[in-house]
Amino acid sequence: MNEVDIRIYSETLELVADAAGSAIRPYFRAITNIDIKNDKTPVTAADKAAELAIREILADRHPDHGQIGEEFGTDRDSSEYVWVIDPIDGTSAFISGQPTFCTLIGLTWRGQPILGLIDQPIIGERWVGVTSKALVSADPGEEAYVSSMFNGKPIHTRSVTALAKATLYATSPDMFVGIDQEVFGRLSRDVSLCRYGLDGYAYGLLALGCIDLVAEASLEIHDYCALVPIIEGAGGVATDWRGEPLSLQSDGHVLASGSQDLHRLALKTLGA
Amino acid sequence: MNEVDIRIYSETLELVADAAGSAIRPYFRAITNIDIKNDKTPVTAADKAAELAIREILADRHPDHGQIGEEFGTDRDSSEYVWVIDPIDGTSAFISGQPTFCTLIGLTWRGQPILGLIDQPIIGERWVGVTSKALVSADPGEEAYVSSMFNGKPIHTRSVTALAKATLYATSPDMFVGIDQEVFGRLSRDVSLCRYGLDGYAYGLLALGCIDLVAEASLEIHDYCALVPIIEGAGGVATDWRGEPLSLQSDGHVLASGSQDLHRLALKTLGA
Repeated sequence: MNEVDIRIYSETLELVADAAGSAIRPYFRAITNIDIKNDKTPVTAADKAAELAIREILADRHPDHGQIGEEFGTDRDSSEYVWVIDPIDGTSAFISGQPTFCTLIGLTWRGQPILGLIDQPIIGERWVGVTSKALVSADPGEEAYVSSMFNGKPIHTRSVTALAKATLYATSPDMFVGIDQEVFGRLSRDVSLCRYGLDGYAYGLLALGCIDLVAEASLEIHDYCALVPIIEGAGGVATDWRGEPLSLQSDGHVLASGSQDLHRLALKTLGA
Repeated sequence: MNEVDIRIYSETLELVADAAGSAIRPYFRAITNIDIKNDKTPVTAADKAAELAIREILADRHPDHGQIGEEFGTDRDSSEYVWVIDPIDGTSAFISGQPTFCTLIGLTWRGQPILGLIDQPIIGERWVGVTSKALVSADPGEEAYVSSMFNGKPIHTRSVTALAKATLYATSPDMFVGIDQEVFGRLSRDVSLCRYGLDGYAYGLLALGCIDLVAEASLEIHDYCALVPIIEGAGGVATDWRGEPLSLQSDGHVLASGSQDLHRLALKTLGA
């Protein structure tokens, strides 16, 4: 992956995010009939419309790349490059009219996330991140690219180095069951502030340097692939709860931190 | 209170919301130095700047009215009309860069909320509600005014009538202690969806007809006085957990519902 590739793939991300946003906006806060809401039709319609718009552009621009989407499954996932699509991350937030749901799109190379997008189409916020660490690690001759942008401007995490000074987010306490609940409870008691309710948007706040930690469990690959390049590109760290790199093969546990030092401390509390 | 009073007080709300927003916006996501963040100075500065701007306009336009604010305390609270001010509701959301914190301003008449504002100055969302039920109940000759607006357009709650179909919000599970925790846990298990993390903004979503219930404990008067007229004006109900009207004397338990039927069911689950 060279500078030209990054430019082309980043352009792709901007195009698909624009298309997804146009597909989603008409449905936002338009679900006033509860019967319609409860059978989830309008939500599925928004999800499906957005994912179709995304897949069409991807297939047109990168016909040899794979695609994995939440609604329409998997195409060519043995390709070297695979796009991972969550048209609406935070469906509960979306159907509740909360303008913090996101479109998440990640690009993986041999299963490892290298490019990612978080897009909030209602309030017009867009994160794009790139990290070529996986490529460099496979071929030390590769040039390294690591950066993140928010609405076109470079962003950086902040470097809190003590748990007692850190702000932690998770989507919901209900995502932690069994031992995960116990272990997350320990981390939530160690930090200065623990808040819930933001889904993928919380990782955007971490990349902006507004919060310090996101710890989650029970995630699917389309929930986290897009986030890794944005966190790493902004100077943060994202791994599973054992400290292993996140890939298409990860187990759904994600820990993202603003700094290496904080990540080590949080991993220790999580029992890694 | 007649139509002219309502127009004047509503104009006051718009003026103070504009002033508060101008005071707050420069501080949003600008707290990147964690040492500064941890001593809370910039947060307090945003809070104080906003409340001062609000109080100045109120004192100028309504010198005989009382004021109760989170930062600068109480003036003339024995007045018939008292304004209740929370310059930044959702301080945790604010310092985390989450664009769902709010400015809350309520006007009470003999201790009962009659006019309210929720303002989100980052994404430009504003709710204004009026309910003259307290005045009509004191003097049946008074004309009744009950309405809510969102960004200048009338809004209405939706009328879900079964807990099993309802979406419930609360700021955080940590706000419920002792028996409150047990009782809220019961309600959260009865509903279709329970989410956390929105502070006063959740009541705005309820007034918009996007969610059905908000149940909270440990609230201060500046957390709920502004919300009552917006909920009632949109056709919903807001009381304490025993079903009593909310006033300056309430105990900090709030239940807001989109419909009378749902409110009755939720009160029953809460043990009223």
